[in-house]
Amino acid sequence: MTRFAVIGTGALGGFYGGLLARAGSEVHFLMRSDAEYVRENGLRVDSHQGDFHVPKVNVYSDVREMPNCDCIILALKSTQNHVLPDLLPPLMHGDSMVLVLQNGLHVEQATRAVVGPGRVAGGCCFLCSNKIGPGHIRHLDYGKILMGPYRGLGDSEPGPTMERLAIIQSEMNSAGIDCHTTESLTLARWRKLMWNIPFNGLSVILNSSTNRIMEHPDSRALAESIIREVRQTACDCGHLIEPEFVQYMMDHTDEMVPYDSSMRLDFLAGRPIEVEAIYGNALRAAQRANVKAPIIQVLYQQLKFLAEHRA
Amino acid sequence: MTRFAVIGTGALGGFYGGLLARAGSEVHFLMRSDAEYVRENGLRVDSHQGDFHVPKVNVYSDVREMPNCDCIILALKSTQNHVLPDLLPPLMHGDSMVLVLQNGLHVEQATRAVVGPGRVAGGCCFLCSNKIGPGHIRHLDYGKILMGPYRGLGDSEPGPTMERLAIIQSEMNSAGIDCHTTESLTLARWRKLMWNIPFNGLSVILNSSTNRIMEHPDSRALAESIIREVRQTACDCGHLIEPEFVQYMMDHTDEMVPYDSSMRLDFLAGRPIEVEAIYGNALRAAQRANVKAPIIQVLYQQLKFLAEHRA
Repeated sequence: MTRFAVIGTGALGGFYGGLLARAGSEVHFLMRSDAEYVRENGLRVDSHQGDFHVPKVNVYSDVREMPNCDCIILALKSTQNHVLPDLLPPLMHGDSMVLVLQNGLHVEQATRAVVGPGRVAGGCCFLCSNKIGPGHIRHLDYGKILMGPYRGLGDSEPGPTMERLAIIQSEMNSAGIDCHTTESLTLARWRKLMWNIPFNGLSVILNSSTNRIMEHPDSRALAESIIREVRQTACDCGHLIEPEFVQYMMDHTDEMVPYDSSMRLDFLAGRPIEVEAIYGNALRAAQRANVKAPIIQVLYQQLKFLAEHRA
Repeated sequence: MTRFAVIGTGALGGFYGGLLARAGSEVHFLMRSDAEYVRENGLRVDSHQGDFHVPKVNVYSDVREMPNCDCIILALKSTQNHVLPDLLPPLMHGDSMVLVLQNGLHVEQATRAVVGPGRVAGGCCFLCSNKIGPGHIRHLDYGKILMGPYRGLGDSEPGPTMERLAIIQSEMNSAGIDCHTTESLTLARWRKLMWNIPFNGLSVILNSSTNRIMEHPDSRALAESIIREVRQTACDCGHLIEPEFVQYMMDHTDEMVPYDSSMRLDFLAGRPIEVEAIYGNALRAAQRANVKAPIIQVLYQQLKFLAEHRA
């Protein structure tokens, strides 16, 4: 049985780690401010799929007290990746792998730089959840993970084998997590960027929820142009996405409940925003392929300014 | 001697009209809320070039009480152009002309639609001034007018003759106004858009003064990309601007005193903003010439949204 570590027990790590722990998997949680509280009170998840409480969890506030783990789930925001050189090595044994559940493109680079090639997988999470108190997660909607081996900036390095990922997937499925695998992580990441690039950025720049952006004809047209540009950029970088996916993203967003993007929540709360992971890395990928992405560039520059000049 | 009407006695009309009146030109001012006050107290201009007061001015609050005029100076914001069919005809005689002192491109179209072709000139104003009270203008910097005949969307209609404009220019010069004429109004308009398009828009979208925009590396680079795109669009529309003018605009903006663009002031005060005159008309000109302007398009769509969703 896989021994899991969860680094970052917020809305995402608390949800997936909580499901694994509830199902009886061995899970070791690294926490900061919540450690004491969760050690005494356990982990609580309120979900429309059924509330649950895990009374006894393995909680640590120092990574050096944790055992080696087989699969380290990285659920910190990518804006925290500068701490990885301290956090990851004490958890690794000769065959450990890291599953990076972060937003953006090539966000696995920071992990790969610490643990080396071949040991990193990445996952796109389609999850709507918040942390509403210490060790207390509210799950609002979705929950799917699509994971695949990380093969480096050139998509040419070996990653963990699909057999290895299938074992993780199977344990996640048993825990009730809608987890899938893909050979083409970078393609999956680009597909997800077709939502994140328009709606994370516009929700911050226009200070608005996604449904308002979809309602106004000009911002709606802008969102659609951005989605098209992200798709074209992905295609020009060699990651083919069907043209119909543009309309699918628009329809999907129309059907979403009024929703604040995670970037807007971070921005309004004064937390760092993931501009580099989502926009900067997409632009750098475009640049390596000699592809122009003028609208993504504008959003990147606007967000970089806004991140440093909050009201 | 030319008989002037000034429509819109705010920061711009009050300044230029005040200078003309002080110099002894016959000037008839149309005002709204300030009419009563100015009739009794005159017009006051505080300027670093010397304060002045014009105690007796011809003030009207109803255009039907005004005499026919030779040169009607239109100094309303273009967002008010829907009132022109009521305001202009009562002021016109067989040889009247209208001088449109508004921001943007082809803003003369609304006037031309009312008074017909051949009777409209436009002027680019480089003026920093505010209205600080009824009939009270504060002049902060600059003041130049560059005016030329308006020749329609295709630049092919006859406009007022250059001789006619030279007479107006001469009277303005005598009044201390730094007024110049050009045969190529549309080119002059595009050159001015190279400042207005980047800095009006970014100051609203990024909620910031121009000097902050110039200080941050990303917004500075964005401003420069926009300036380049405006120049390229002008060139592709047949209005050639030298490449060096990009750097000139950057240097010029670096040297400006910390300054809030007029669009930002309007936006913060809840007044309409001139998105169509500045951005919409530039995009429509590009479209007529089959030219793409992706960044201007993004700014246009963002501003249209923001104009209708103020905090």
